[in-house]
This record gives sequence, structure tokens and C-alpha cells, in this order.
Amino acid sequence: MKSRSSSKIYVTVVGGSRADERALRMAEEVGRLVAQRGGILVTGGRGGVMEAACRGAKEAGGLTVGILPGESREEANPYVDVALPTGLGNARNALTVLAGDAVIVVGGEAGTLSEVGLALAYGKPVVALRPSGGVAELLAGKRIGAYAVEAADTPEEAVSKAFELALRARKALS
Amino acid sequence: MKSRSSSKIYVTVVGGSRADERALRMAEEVGRLVAQRGGILVTGGRGGVMEAACRGAKEAGGLTVGILPGESREEANPYVDVALPTGLGNARNALTVLAGDAVIVVGGEAGTLSEVGLALAYGKPVVALRPSGGVAELLAGKRIGAYAVEAADTPEEAVSKAFELALRARKALS
Amino acid sequence: MKSRSSSKIYVTVVGGSRADERALRMAEEVGRLVAQRGGILVTGGRGGVMEAACRGAKEAGGLTVGILPGESREEANPYVDVALPTGLGNARNALTVLAGDAVIVVGGEAGTLSEVGLALAYGKPVVALRPSGGVAELLAGKRIGAYAVEAADTPEEAVSKAFELALRARKALS
Amino acid sequence: MKSRSSSKIYVTVVGGSRADERALRMAEEVGRLVAQRGGILVTGGRGGVMEAACRGAKEAGGLTVGILPGESREEANPYVDVALPTGLGNARNALTVLAGDAVIVVGGEAGTLSEVGLALAYGKPVVALRPSGGVAELLAGKRIGAYAVEAADTPEEAVSKAFELALRARKALS
Repeated sequence: MKSRSSSKIYVTVVGGSRADERALRMAEEVGRLVAQRGGILVTGGRGGVMEAACRGAKEAGGLTVGILPGESREEANPYVDVALPTGLGNARNALTVLAGDAVIVVGGEAGTLSEVGLALAYGKPVVALRPSGGVAELLAGKRIGAYAVEAADTPEEAVSKAFELALRARKALS
Repeated sequence: MKSRSSSKIYVTVVGGSRADERALRMAEEVGRLVAQRGGILVTGGRGGVMEAACRGAKEAGGLTVGILPGESREEANPYVDVALPTGLGNARNALTVLAGDAVIVVGGEAGTLSEVGLALAYGKPVVALRPSGGVAELLAGKRIGAYAVEAADTPEEAVSKAFELALRARKALS
Repeated sequence: MKSRSSSKIYVTVVGGSRADERALRMAEEVGRLVAQRGGILVTGGRGGVMEAACRGAKEAGGLTVGILPGESREEANPYVDVALPTGLGNARNALTVLAGDAVIVVGGEAGTLSEVGLALAYGKPVVALRPSGGVAELLAGKRIGAYAVEAADTPEEAVSKAFELALRARKALS
Repeated sequence: MKSRSSSKIYVTVVGGSRADERALRMAEEVGRLVAQRGGILVTGGRGGVMEAACRGAKEAGGLTVGILPGESREEANPYVDVALPTGLGNARNALTVLAGDAVIVVGGEAGTLSEVGLALAYGKPVVALRPSGGVAELLAGKRIGAYAVEAADTPEEAVSKAFELALRARKALS
């Protein structure tokens, strides 16, 4: 009966609500791969990269969580299983990354930049999918103070690194 | 493939991390009934009333969400399926109630008092399970400004009222 | 040059944005007395009781801080010296009470109820000005779990108790 | 008696709690210049760049606001006039930048990166003091989606640009 939620890996995918076709296809593939490995997918719950990742995860039978900026569940994209309105506006970005054991960056603009910074501040592993452009391209491989943003060139590499780093972080804690 | 999360009813159960046997039994029954009706159970994710409600929901095969005050999923009780650390401390109480279409109060102390106030401020229906004591007993049937806290005398009545009010609120919106 | 902000007493006044004349006069008097004792007045920054308390404090030459729910300083009342938009909606209530060494309740509805609960959850002394009605009257003298809401019958008594309890709490910490 | 807080310019200075001597001297000069122009200085309230900026502002007789991550005012640096504990952890970064009409970046690591992203997401002008290193150097002159991070080479230029952009943004709103 116990759900042992703490044994599951949560992966947060961050990226813009506006994105080009290439970034969207990559996000969908990332979502699918996270679900195929049994991970719970967390996003900001809205359109663009967030929706594409959720769609991919649902196609693979995964569970998706959307952490929304506004006060209504209605703003969630249709591929979100558990939709959580926060009413916090942009401050919800902190929660989106805190919910993940690792964070994958696909494209992205200002909000995504904040999510990378917040993820690093919380000590989360961050993997940027370089060819997706935007913030992912800007920060892939960069050092920010004591932390580094990992670079990946394909969705497979991004998800593989995210799981590996998440498991390593979990072991370091236990 | 769409998950139509917006068609599900979310019910938040609030109550103390410390509670007497009677309140715990009632909370477990509330959780079970929410799950049997197909609702998603939301709590603050920790012990006491929160844990009892989650255990009841899992016994009935339901889905449970825990919105945690700290930064780690480790503080979730073992019956939480989706555990979300917020790092917001007591401010997370706002998110716990905002996630529900209705709120059921079982026992409770200071944190629960804040959750009733926040739920009413967000316009959520609130049902207090009177015989569970604490804040539930203090506020059952009371008017707070423009809002009223509904009273229920059994877990069945509480869950029944919560679903009815949640559905009515949803219709009023659409 | 040091500002020794930590030696100042901060008093948070909570109460409704809608209030009757009697509550408003009491709030103004509370604000004036807080300022006369050298306290920094904190409120939610908007109208009604919050504005009346700020006006009182400014008439006595005090410093007023408004912690706003929205993203713009424009929603502050004209007697706020330091206006802080939070963008957190009702979750900002947690910050309003956390900023005070003690909390005084004047009238109030749902939001105020949440502020009393949050203040108690943070271990802050809470004094309810009983004749101001609303939540103040409902909770004055009540025990909520391990905590008690103090009752006061006049603005003088409320402010006097708030400073006394704030100083005692500070000593207990040091 | 009115305080017309809305007519004052608030400038937020962000940067690391660890910083080298050069960044600290620049931050102090930025704080002094903000105060000399009559601005209210907002920071995260702690050490390093935040403390240096507050010290500079106090030397020039300015008013300083510190928005703290924890639940206690005790963590404020000694040059903070109005210290606001938020209990939000890293999510408080959203409030630090939202409080400013413009944001100046001095050095900085992960938390500062998040503050630049959040500031841009809120549509705030951001000026990065390039020679201060860290995040300021990484992002000065960069475009992030629809927004640009302005570059400045001296504290004078940074403060001058910040006030100019803040006044322009304010006019655009009114």
C-alpha cells in the first residue's frame, strides 16, 4: 500500500512557452525518455516546451506534474496529470526545479534562465540540451560559481545524464 | 493520451501533524472516501491527519499529492505518491488549499487555522468535520466575512458536501 | 552608520480591506501608538484597516512598510513608506506576519484569519483588539493548539501588550 | 503626511554573498550612488555584495531594505534599515527583484543568475556591471529572448543607466 514516492526519480524539464519546432521535438523526446525510464516528469505545466515534454511522457505512459504560476488549474496543458496552481507568479519557478532530482533545459528565455539559477542554488544537477538553442545553448558547459551546467547533444544523452546525476546525488545524501 | 486532469476533483484535507486517535480515524476514512469517488487527495504531506488521510486514500487505490514545507521529499509520509517540496515553510499552506477544489478540515491547530483562512480567501468551499475537535470544531458553521465554513458530523457527510460544493463551484466558473 | 535594524520592534497590524468606522478609528490609533513607541509598522499595504493603521503611524512620524499581494507598488495605500510588491497573492500573508515581532488584529475576515493562523504557526505573539469585531472578536482569548490569542479592549492595551510580548520573545531568543 | 512611496525609485542590487575585493568596492560605490540620487536600495540583505551595497548607501544617508531568505531578521547585515524575513528560501529571489524599478548586477553566482532571469521575466531593466566578474560578466550585453541585459563599465554608468531605464519604464506605464 505504501507508495514509496521517495524511490522514484523526478525530472524537471524547463524551457520556453514559445519555442521553435526543433526545440519542441527535442522536448517531446526528452519527456518520452523520462517516462520510459520510470521517472516522474515535472514542468511548469504550460505550453511550448512544457507541453511537448508532457505529451511525450504521456505517449510513453508516464506520470506528469505541472506546477502552474496562476491560481487556476485551467491554465495547465492537456497532458498534465497532476496540475498544481500556486498563485506565486514567477516565484513558482523555484518550486518547479526544487521538485526535480535533476533538471533538463530545452531552449528557453528569461524564465528558464531563472530556473537554471534556482536549480543550481538548490544544488540540483542541470543538463542543457545544447542544440535546442536559447538559454540551453547559452549556458551549456558553463561554470556558475561552484556549479557547472552539463551539456548534452541529444535527448538521449540529456536524459541519461540527468538520471545518472540524480542517482549520484541521491547516494551522496544517503 | 490526454490526461484531462482538469476533469478530476481535487480535495485537500487539512489538519494537525499531531492528532488524537479519533481525529486520525476520521481522517483515514475521509481519505478513503475521497479516493473511492475518484478524487485526487492533496495534503501537506506530513504526519498525523495528513498521513492518516493519505493512508486511507491509498487503501482505496487513490492518488495522493503532498505539498511539503521543506526542501526535501524525504519529509513526506510513506503514503504520498507525488511529493512536492516547496521550501516555502508555512507559506506553503496557501498552495495546499489552492490545489483543492474543496477543503476538508479535521482537527487542527495554528497551521490548520491558516489553511481555513487561506481557503476562504481563495473562494474555496471549506467543510469542517466538527467531531474531530481543534480548529474544525472551533470554526464549523461559522461565518467569516462573506464566507461560511460548512459543518459535517461524519466523514461521509464531509466528503459528500465537499464533492457537491466543488462541483457547484466548477459549474459556476464555466 | 550601522542601522541596527534588529534593535527596532516591528509590529504587524492585520485586518480587513473592508472595515466599519469603529474598526478604522481603532486601527488608526493602533498605528499612531506603534509609531510613538518607535516601532516600525508593517501591514499588507492596502486599504481599510491597513490604510488606517499606516495613516496613524505617519501622523506620529513613524515608518511604515507595506507587503503587497500583487506585482505593482501602485496598489499600496498613500501612507506606505516602503512598498514591497510580492506577486505571491494570498501567500504573501505569511510574509506580513513573519515581518513582525508581534501581530495586532483589528476586525478582519478570511485573509485576517489566515494571518492569525500563520502568526501562531511562526510562534509570534498575537493580540486581538476585541471590540473591533470580525476575526479579532472571534479569536480574542482563544487557545489554538499550544498557542493563545491575547485579548485587548483598547488600542492602548493592544499596543502595550504587543510590545511587551515582542520584547519578551526577543529576550527568550537571546 | 502622505509618504508618496510610489514616487521614489527603488533599485535592487544583486550579487553573491561571496565576492572578491574588486566586486565589493564596486558594490559599495553602487550603493552610495543610488542613495545620493535619492533611491531606496533593495538587496537580499545578507553578506558580500549585498552588505557592501548597503554600507555604501548608509554612508550616503540612504534607506536600505533587505529581503531575507530565512525566518529571522538576525541574518540581515548591519547596514539594513528595513529587514524582512520571508521564510521562502531561494524563492525570495523573485521578491528581491520585483521590489526594484531596475536591477544592477555585481559579480554573482547561481542565486544571482536566477535573479537576472526573474528580473527579465518581470520586465525589469537589468544592468550588469561587467568588470565585477561572475554572472555580471557572463550576461552583460546578452539578449535573453525578448529582453537584453544592459552592460555598464563603472558604478557611475550602472547607476545612471538604472535610473534612466527605471524612469522610462515608469513613464511607459503611466
